[in-house]
Amino acid sequence: LTPQENGKGLVQIFTGNGKGKTTAALGTVLRATGHSLKVFIVFFMKGDYAYGEYSALAKLPNVETASFGFRKFTDPSNIKPEEKEQAKAALETARKAVLSGNYNLVVLDEVNVALSYNLIELDDVIRLIKEKPSHVELILTGRYANSRLIDMADLVTEMVKVKHPFDKGIKARKGIEY
Amino acid sequence: LTPQENGKGLVQIFTGNGKGKTTAALGTVLRATGHSLKVFIVFFMKGDYAYGEYSALAKLPNVETASFGFRKFTDPSNIKPEEKEQAKAALETARKAVLSGNYNLVVLDEVNVALSYNLIELDDVIRLIKEKPSHVELILTGRYANSRLIDMADLVTEMVKVKHPFDKGIKARKGIEY
Repeated sequence: LTPQENGKGLVQIFTGNGKGKTTAALGTVLRATGHSLKVFIVFFMKGDYAYGEYSALAKLPNVETASFGFRKFTDPSNIKPEEKEQAKAALETARKAVLSGNYNLVVLDEVNVALSYNLIELDDVIRLIKEKPSHVELILTGRYANSRLIDMADLVTEMVKVKHPFDKGIKARKGIEY
Repeated sequence: LTPQENGKGLVQIFTGNGKGKTTAALGTVLRATGHSLKVFIVFFMKGDYAYGEYSALAKLPNVETASFGFRKFTDPSNIKPEEKEQAKAALETARKAVLSGNYNLVVLDEVNVALSYNLIELDDVIRLIKEKPSHVELILTGRYANSRLIDMADLVTEMVKVKHPFDKGIKARKGIEY
């Protein structure tokens, strides 16, 4: 399928405090590559952490990625200028990928968090959604999805934490959580 | 990492009426393969449908899959003997994979639905969880997760539908939903 043959692209949001938001986006990417769709993933908040997904994604055909942010988690009460710069560069990269029309699916991973920390402007994300070519599917992930984005989206899922091992003191495990 | 080097395996459940349960399991599989973990996926209810995930999964290293069920969705008010046979064969396949100890991660996709339709016995799933080697991570997906399984699980996420395009009459799209 060429990008244009796959029909209308929707806007999906995975939000909520539960596990599975980025993970579901990655699963969607995996499925899309099975149909030879073209994918671009922008990681807004991942930095240079050696997540398992990077090496796995690198092996998939038709998937390009770009990573921004810092390994150490952003402290929302003490945002640094370079964190804003990174987030803006991430959004600009996403914008180019979306408007190019060359991809069926563009994932903006953790863009909701970047927005909630005011690292980027809500209006810029709204404009990107409005200007996207109709065949492009967008996935926005991260907690704290903005209500205006939820209004604009076609498919919104809230991942709700029912039970999480971190609550019992179990740490993130290589290969499973990252 | 060998299966034994990755530490204690947990039991994860993705349930709820929202999108992203199987998809999050697939994302976890993708991430796991990035760390060279070994994965076995049993599809309980997928049948021979040419899901995009099959061809994508086939390209991933260290991932084996087995599919059961029928393409046409099971009608819970009219369960056919062959549907029970398929589900039982799926559980037996999962059991062998789990107990072999050869895999870091075993996914029982849609096992919750198979259970809720009484295609398989709850006690058999409980026994499988109890007998699993400690290093094996289990992921159980599907709506209607049984409360006893939720009690036994370490990590439970409910995918809650906030908004879904099927509600607006938009059909499942190749490459995105399947």
